[in-house]
Amino acid sequence: MNFLQAGQGADYINTGSWSKKAIAQARRFGDVYVVASSEDRNFTYVPTESDLTPSARYLHFTSNNTIFGTQFRDEPTPTGDAWLVCDASSDIFCQPIDISRYGLIYAGAQKNLGPSGVTLVIIRDDLVKAGALDIPEMLQYRTHADNDSCYNTPPTFGIYVMGLVFRWLLDQGGLEEIGRRNQEKAATLYDYLDEDVLFKPTAETGSRSLMNITFVTGNPDLDARFIETASRSGLSGLKGHRSVGGMRASIYNAFPPAGVEKLVDVMKDFAQQHG
Amino acid sequence: MNFLQAGQGADYINTGSWSKKAIAQARRFGDVYVVASSEDRNFTYVPTESDLTPSARYLHFTSNNTIFGTQFRDEPTPTGDAWLVCDASSDIFCQPIDISRYGLIYAGAQKNLGPSGVTLVIIRDDLVKAGALDIPEMLQYRTHADNDSCYNTPPTFGIYVMGLVFRWLLDQGGLEEIGRRNQEKAATLYDYLDEDVLFKPTAETGSRSLMNITFVTGNPDLDARFIETASRSGLSGLKGHRSVGGMRASIYNAFPPAGVEKLVDVMKDFAQQHG
Repeated sequence: MNFLQAGQGADYINTGSWSKKAIAQARRFGDVYVVASSEDRNFTYVPTESDLTPSARYLHFTSNNTIFGTQFRDEPTPTGDAWLVCDASSDIFCQPIDISRYGLIYAGAQKNLGPSGVTLVIIRDDLVKAGALDIPEMLQYRTHADNDSCYNTPPTFGIYVMGLVFRWLLDQGGLEEIGRRNQEKAATLYDYLDEDVLFKPTAETGSRSLMNITFVTGNPDLDARFIETASRSGLSGLKGHRSVGGMRASIYNAFPPAGVEKLVDVMKDFAQQHG
Repeated sequence: MNFLQAGQGADYINTGSWSKKAIAQARRFGDVYVVASSEDRNFTYVPTESDLTPSARYLHFTSNNTIFGTQFRDEPTPTGDAWLVCDASSDIFCQPIDISRYGLIYAGAQKNLGPSGVTLVIIRDDLVKAGALDIPEMLQYRTHADNDSCYNTPPTFGIYVMGLVFRWLLDQGGLEEIGRRNQEKAATLYDYLDEDVLFKPTAETGSRSLMNITFVTGNPDLDARFIETASRSGLSGLKGHRSVGGMRASIYNAFPPAGVEKLVDVMKDFAQQHG
């Protein structure tokens, strides 16, 4: 809405549900070119962008895909003067960010930052000024940048909690340390999945998410029994999205390593009984 | 944005800062007719609408004006098929509402409902369906109505607290009782202002707000000394907006009657010493 007007175009990478929503809404404003998509294999991998559009204003991607359990390992590279736009809602601050590569990052708070109802936006100074002027003032990035995010009464509670989370991140050793822990947590689960015969990871090896780990037994009844078993052990929310089925372990920054270890123990027990 | 498109028009009543913002933003979408304004006397009263526009889709008003301390005693009446739209952010649920008179009410939570970051919308069923389709889905009322306000991850904490406030309102005896208390609280202060010689109310008699009571001594230095004196007695936030000067007592639903009585006591003491 700020950067795409009739006669202008932008490149989009389609890696699932949230990318599709971004593409559909952007099409209301200008020309959208889907320059890469993993829809051919039900979004189980992160595709490589190709044939970028020379006139594209920006390249948009969704860094982590909660439903399909995939995550970009490296940022895609936009072409020419285009800048990189990222929906980082589900993996922001899961590891260090090379901020110099981005024009705009937006991230809903509810996964890694704080309570729902706040969106963190990191935007390049020149882009703040380049945004559309013929849209409502509340929807212009410049309005919020020029008013220190206090043009309206901001969602104070959410911002306060985000501040506490940022301090916690720093106290833990910052994003370097958080990234190391997330790698370790994810490895605990993926290593087990790679050697087990009952549970299979659904995301392709080079595209696996640190935040959402999706896996199946291949038998929906057995999946349902596992989810029930895990729930009795205090491990809830493991049911996968209906478009993937099976299980999904969401292990955001706040999820403790001990929880991942417990999940693997419960999986081992279950595999022994039902394998 | 939902109800005004190029070639369409709407009537607006201008009673101050928030009305002006609504008017300025609506002008981006269609024709705006200011059918009443109290700008001629620095918004110290609620004007009567006249010469309503026969083709207007709706009539918009701001039910309470925080800065100028004015409030509509009764709803204005739109013409023909036009419906009534109200920004009730600063007086929602301060008294019973005759909901049948409205097409749309919107109210930011932060005055009478809960923490900032949530907006309550009450909208007539037929208007949900009548809204524009060529705006982003997130900005269409139908998106939120059709999805029980869960199209996006909603601001859960704010909604939860609003639920607690609604229960509290019911426990107190509902809006009838809340309205009675607000009348009483406001009368305590206005009755004193009407008989005092030092402090003068700024809003005209028939337009006085139950929520924000504005008054001055007529001497800015004395105003500043009073604000300091009151602050030492634990009564903070009394400084009026710079466009009115003087003092403003904001006595929203949550403000206790004892606080109003204490304010009057502090005013009496101050008047005796400085009157």
